[in-house]
Amino acid sequence: MKKYKRNQRIGALMKIFAEKPNYLFSYNYFCGIFNAAKSTISEDVAIVKELVEEMNFGRIETISGASGGVMFISILGSKERNDILEQLCSLFSQKNRILPGGFIYLTDIFNNPRIVSNIAEVISSEFSNKHIDYIVTVETKGIPVAIMTGQKLNVPVAVIRRNNKITEGATVSINYVSGSSNNIQTMSLSKRSLKEDAEILIVDDFMKGGGTCKGMEDMMREFNANVVGTAVVIETIEPEKKLADNYISLLVLNNTSIKEGIIEIRPSPKLLK
Amino acid sequence: MKKYKRNQRIGALMKIFAEKPNYLFSYNYFCGIFNAAKSTISEDVAIVKELVEEMNFGRIETISGASGGVMFISILGSKERNDILEQLCSLFSQKNRILPGGFIYLTDIFNNPRIVSNIAEVISSEFSNKHIDYIVTVETKGIPVAIMTGQKLNVPVAVIRRNNKITEGATVSINYVSGSSNNIQTMSLSKRSLKEDAEILIVDDFMKGGGTCKGMEDMMREFNANVVGTAVVIETIEPEKKLADNYISLLVLNNTSIKEGIIEIRPSPKLLK
Repeated sequence: MKKYKRNQRIGALMKIFAEKPNYLFSYNYFCGIFNAAKSTISEDVAIVKELVEEMNFGRIETISGASGGVMFISILGSKERNDILEQLCSLFSQKNRILPGGFIYLTDIFNNPRIVSNIAEVISSEFSNKHIDYIVTVETKGIPVAIMTGQKLNVPVAVIRRNNKITEGATVSINYVSGSSNNIQTMSLSKRSLKEDAEILIVDDFMKGGGTCKGMEDMMREFNANVVGTAVVIETIEPEKKLADNYISLLVLNNTSIKEGIIEIRPSPKLLK
Repeated sequence: MKKYKRNQRIGALMKIFAEKPNYLFSYNYFCGIFNAAKSTISEDVAIVKELVEEMNFGRIETISGASGGVMFISILGSKERNDILEQLCSLFSQKNRILPGGFIYLTDIFNNPRIVSNIAEVISSEFSNKHIDYIVTVETKGIPVAIMTGQKLNVPVAVIRRNNKITEGATVSINYVSGSSNNIQTMSLSKRSLKEDAEILIVDDFMKGGGTCKGMEDMMREFNANVVGTAVVIETIEPEKKLADNYISLLVLNNTSIKEGIIEIRPSPKLLK
């Protein structure tokens, strides 16, 4: 069987870790891949650990014992995070995004995997030391952010639907008041989506009144789930008082500026600590 | 400024490539990160290139000239691909997935980033040598597969909506006949979603009659876009004749088996070439 050189193993290890952050790999798994002794892999992991720290990629956690192994936790440095937020601000504030009625066209951003990956990296870094079982979002625009955050935290996603679907099996439905329009709306989630007593991170693209996030919090109570936190990509500066509490946002939009034909958006002070 | 050892640079290079497949990095970018001369980076890239080939990760492409650089193209080996397809079959055929009315509960699978990442890896490997500008899908269940395939191919995604939304700006709408139920339905796509003469890969979760994929093909004609291919995760064995043509599927479902309480699903012969 083939043998690999040390720098090949280091390269392959980093590739495998980067593609599956927060995933616990056993030493035996690597012994098999590289056809190498556990002591060799341990030395490789020590080198990778140092490299990850020196390059500010996050950290490597080693867990000893029979069910132990190695895990890469990806965490953005504050400089990288602030660079991402600044890039997002210039992207979101492009003038030609203003639509009739004072709406902003953001669909291309929320469907661009490269940008969404950066957004997800910011969110997952914020929650990297929390225990989370599921990401929960509501269709449609928040799904890519939810999926990529789930990928980085290595947890499944549950997508709340606006309507009941026959392919979801038995569902729990709730009514909620949209914070910005005061309309009553319905959301449904398949009963199979979540296990009991789950720890939840709610993720959404946009928060104005906070009614949708409040609705998701209410839905989580129906599942006996505990909301660990809520992350939205953009919140509007007004109304100042939102229906949801205990949330972080990446960006804050001055929604009264749009009437004048400008989009004023800046990194959220909640993140710049 | 800090200097890094060779095996540290190899590890960091593989991490950076793995997180952004199909992305062209300039040599200068790496010179900056590692505080190293271009000749050093060239030697590192040669080592990474050999490693990627020996480990069957895909290939490294180097493009010379002023606008040149290095790119990692992730391609599954046929053994890894077949392993993924077999894993998907055992997951999809779990008995408790059968819902009243002969439907199958698949939502948890299509919202699980780890599984979806594998599905996307199979699709992106199939299309790794085609020029693609956008992935196109229709809401809702196909979105995660589309986003992760887009991430691996480094292209944006356009999501066709079932209804017109005010936040999409001007849209193009078409009516189409659902192949399985013969209902007439509407789909809309923002005019801003695609640039002119784009090359498109259509991605969806499920194909029965093929009407939805046919509708997406029709929609692409309205945008003067060229459909390079269509990939669905599951197709049903019946009806044999689908409305869409020129598509690949990952798995084939024997849809008449469900009445007997079993889910018979196997890797698609179209892939096992």
